[in-house]
Amino acid sequence: MMAYEYGRNILLVDGGIMFPESDMHGIDAVIPDYSYLKDKRDLVRGIIVTHGHEDHTGAMPYVVKDFPNVPIYCTPLTRGLLEIKLKEAKILDKTTINALPTDGTVNIGPFKVEFFRMCHSIPDNVGLGITTPAGLIVHSGDFKFDHTPVDGHKPDFAKLAEFAGRGVLALLSDSTNAEYPGITPSERDIEPALENVFRDAEGRVIVATFASLISRVQQVVNISEMYGRKLAIAGASMMENIKIAQKMGYLDIPDGILVKLEDAVKMPPHEVAVMATGTQGEPSAVLGRMATGRHSLLNAMPGDSIVLSAHPIPGNEEYVHRIINRLFQKGANVIYSPLAQVHVSGHARQEEQKLLISLLRPKYFIPVHGELRMLTAHGRLARQLGIPADNIFVVENGTPIEFTDGRARKLDRIPGGYVFVDGSGVGDIGPMVIRDREMLARDGFILLVMRRNSQGGLANDPEIITRGFVYMKDSEDFLKTLAQSVREELKNLNGTASDTVLKEKAVDVLNKFVYSETRRRPMIIPVVA
Amino acid sequence: MMAYEYGRNILLVDGGIMFPESDMHGIDAVIPDYSYLKDKRDLVRGIIVTHGHEDHTGAMPYVVKDFPNVPIYCTPLTRGLLEIKLKEAKILDKTTINALPTDGTVNIGPFKVEFFRMCHSIPDNVGLGITTPAGLIVHSGDFKFDHTPVDGHKPDFAKLAEFAGRGVLALLSDSTNAEYPGITPSERDIEPALENVFRDAEGRVIVATFASLISRVQQVVNISEMYGRKLAIAGASMMENIKIAQKMGYLDIPDGILVKLEDAVKMPPHEVAVMATGTQGEPSAVLGRMATGRHSLLNAMPGDSIVLSAHPIPGNEEYVHRIINRLFQKGANVIYSPLAQVHVSGHARQEEQKLLISLLRPKYFIPVHGELRMLTAHGRLARQLGIPADNIFVVENGTPIEFTDGRARKLDRIPGGYVFVDGSGVGDIGPMVIRDREMLARDGFILLVMRRNSQGGLANDPEIITRGFVYMKDSEDFLKTLAQSVREELKNLNGTASDTVLKEKAVDVLNKFVYSETRRRPMIIPVVA
Repeated sequence: MMAYEYGRNILLVDGGIMFPESDMHGIDAVIPDYSYLKDKRDLVRGIIVTHGHEDHTGAMPYVVKDFPNVPIYCTPLTRGLLEIKLKEAKILDKTTINALPTDGTVNIGPFKVEFFRMCHSIPDNVGLGITTPAGLIVHSGDFKFDHTPVDGHKPDFAKLAEFAGRGVLALLSDSTNAEYPGITPSERDIEPALENVFRDAEGRVIVATFASLISRVQQVVNISEMYGRKLAIAGASMMENIKIAQKMGYLDIPDGILVKLEDAVKMPPHEVAVMATGTQGEPSAVLGRMATGRHSLLNAMPGDSIVLSAHPIPGNEEYVHRIINRLFQKGANVIYSPLAQVHVSGHARQEEQKLLISLLRPKYFIPVHGELRMLTAHGRLARQLGIPADNIFVVENGTPIEFTDGRARKLDRIPGGYVFVDGSGVGDIGPMVIRDREMLARDGFILLVMRRNSQGGLANDPEIITRGFVYMKDSEDFLKTLAQSVREELKNLNGTASDTVLKEKAVDVLNKFVYSETRRRPMIIPVVA
Repeated sequence: MMAYEYGRNILLVDGGIMFPESDMHGIDAVIPDYSYLKDKRDLVRGIIVTHGHEDHTGAMPYVVKDFPNVPIYCTPLTRGLLEIKLKEAKILDKTTINALPTDGTVNIGPFKVEFFRMCHSIPDNVGLGITTPAGLIVHSGDFKFDHTPVDGHKPDFAKLAEFAGRGVLALLSDSTNAEYPGITPSERDIEPALENVFRDAEGRVIVATFASLISRVQQVVNISEMYGRKLAIAGASMMENIKIAQKMGYLDIPDGILVKLEDAVKMPPHEVAVMATGTQGEPSAVLGRMATGRHSLLNAMPGDSIVLSAHPIPGNEEYVHRIINRLFQKGANVIYSPLAQVHVSGHARQEEQKLLISLLRPKYFIPVHGELRMLTAHGRLARQLGIPADNIFVVENGTPIEFTDGRARKLDRIPGGYVFVDGSGVGDIGPMVIRDREMLARDGFILLVMRRNSQGGLANDPEIITRGFVYMKDSEDFLKTLAQSVREELKNLNGTASDTVLKEKAVDVLNKFVYSETRRRPMIIPVVA
């Protein structure tokens, strides 16, 4: 999420969701921390959503809840996809979503926002030219320069040239692929590989990709038609997205191609193609369930050709590889990168990033969308193109850049980071709870229940319950020894010692004993009954 | 680990260690499950170790403990590195390690084993020609065909040709890079990129790599000398390995180049280079501690050029990226793949794998070293080269292949999988404990302490203690509500109900209430005091 602020006016751009990192234990999703805006609710004049992918829309249900009735502006397909999301969250009536064409203009408070088309892996994706009283800011949004996009709509080079003519104060540009030289291949470039699969497949073809990768769906529809296969969709979110995109005319699906999944699985395998979700190794998505035999209709089997048309998002590699292995185990043929070019990124590489900078000739350059390593690489590119180092701001999330009289300066970073979503809780899980989960994940816990006798001493050996530490059934003797060691060590404790002292002493004894015996450090919870 | 068995004779090859996968919670290391051999201890005639990397030697302390006095055979450098490892584990006296030259031959029971040189990223690496009564098996070991290896020793093509002349019954070949087309670049090919770093660096140059990547150490020594820098070593394991390799003549380090780390940090930064461990994101290795400011001598600072001369092992990407980000945060310049070619793999790619098959013309082909997806890709290569599908065995760990009268067949997979090492425990942590850790990591636990009054009912609201579920200090009201809901629901329970019934009922109430309120499923532990 990006906030543009002028006087008492704030314009927000996007509200995305992030996969939790693998040590964010138990966290379902991560959304932006916009607590900076909590006191400034009344100043938020509008929210722009640049395109309909999860990493730009996934937090919108939370955003709408926190900023009800703030109007949203986006292109028509993005509106369609947003509506599905807000309807699911039962919050669609709390806001208004205004659709603009991809070259539309809207005034939001003091900001004049001009949409312009940029290519990505979804139709109706736009960048923004934001004319502020301080000057013109260009916000690239996610982009690549694709000369042969699937939907036929090329980037709006004319608009970029026009911005350059007007003078660009600052460019904020997508850094995702800033570490990679060259040019990201066109969407079209995956079609030969996909066609190979369809041509060679003797059984079903199953193509897995992101639920919101509408361009990829169009490609699979086209190839299915070409090879005389019916197409079924597996995955509720993908189905919803396809329905809306088709209804709005963003997907061109010939009559009779689509079949229901329950019908598809009964047809001869060589007449069927399926699109599915789950390319990130999520165990509950379609591919994950296919791999472990937990899908009610679709099970991987010999003869299946299964295409992973997506790259693993960093951090998901291990889970993705595991699913690939399991699909091979079930006898399927799995086609994935690097075996074949069945996916291309939707993000510009270095040469395209340079082109955008050269086209716009901005005074200031701020790399956005990416980890610090990517932002750093992108900042270096800008240096190579002649932008002075002082005019390049490689900054982390939460760092305001202030423009005054045509000059920019970096302000102190605003405290905050990620907001964790866990179950129905948003933001209630903080570092303390995560640290406890980490400790529990590593060595489990020991629960020590002590009972005092009438003299105040221990009535007998304490009761010991453990989970995640040792397998209790196999460790009866060891746990008995633990209990005895606590009792033995505590027997000299004065019977009038408080429960607190008793607990402290017991934890101390147990910690030392357990570590010396096992080299593990389980969490120890003492209870005096 | 591989076992070759003939009659009542078993020959073992290698005993490696694996990084735990990210959902193997709390596991320190993973070693092979060789429980199949437990009843056959007396039949094990020898253990061959092909080279000194962790993934081939890391489990040797456990293997030596389980097979004391079984002689080990390897090349001299491998022996040196093994001795360090076994000495650390205080088990060196339990075995004998016999050093053979890289073209040595040894008879072990009915097996005649001929070593032959193969290139890898460590000197003294060998493959094995194993002449058995059933025929000649070639075991590639880790390999690449490097025509310009750092130590100058090329692969032993003559021996490979000789094997082919004798007739190879089966080839077992390294599959690590079977998904990648082309040829792995030579070790030498990273030198231009490393030299660039040394030439451009204004401050210190810090090169991180694996502790056992002896060839890389030689390269950094050479370039340090070329650019007039002293070299310090950070990381105890790397230091030990370098000492032994230097002593044995496998590292050529000019006098006066090496300095102690504590001296290096006091020298002018542009006169210093450092080699360090920690390229896999391990928080306790040197690079991890540098990134978080927890190293006593070495802290990342502006001016430092830090080279990650290793690729992340799959599953470690996220941690490696995090360290790169943190080093950038500290103002260092970080050089890593794909920004520059500062690492090459030690494993053959497809064209080299094909070359080995073509050179040896084996009757049977068994891809080894790799996940099922890599084995599958390697098996396909063999098909392309004309080996009949029936003569290719793509099998998972634990699957025996039996050769009788020159014909091979696959036997049933032997039960077993990985053995987990956790603290001082080896193999005591099984799936049940891991499942509990997973559950605890996800949602923590609730401990419910109930006390009964003299009528057998609940004396008062149960005591509730939680960790990893909600932050207790912020959740007093919620926890109070939980306690009340349990008491309320249990109040109609007959006072004579057993503790077991009381607990079951309480867990049931709490599960439902907690899920409906939070959508989380913490582990619930009931205790009746």
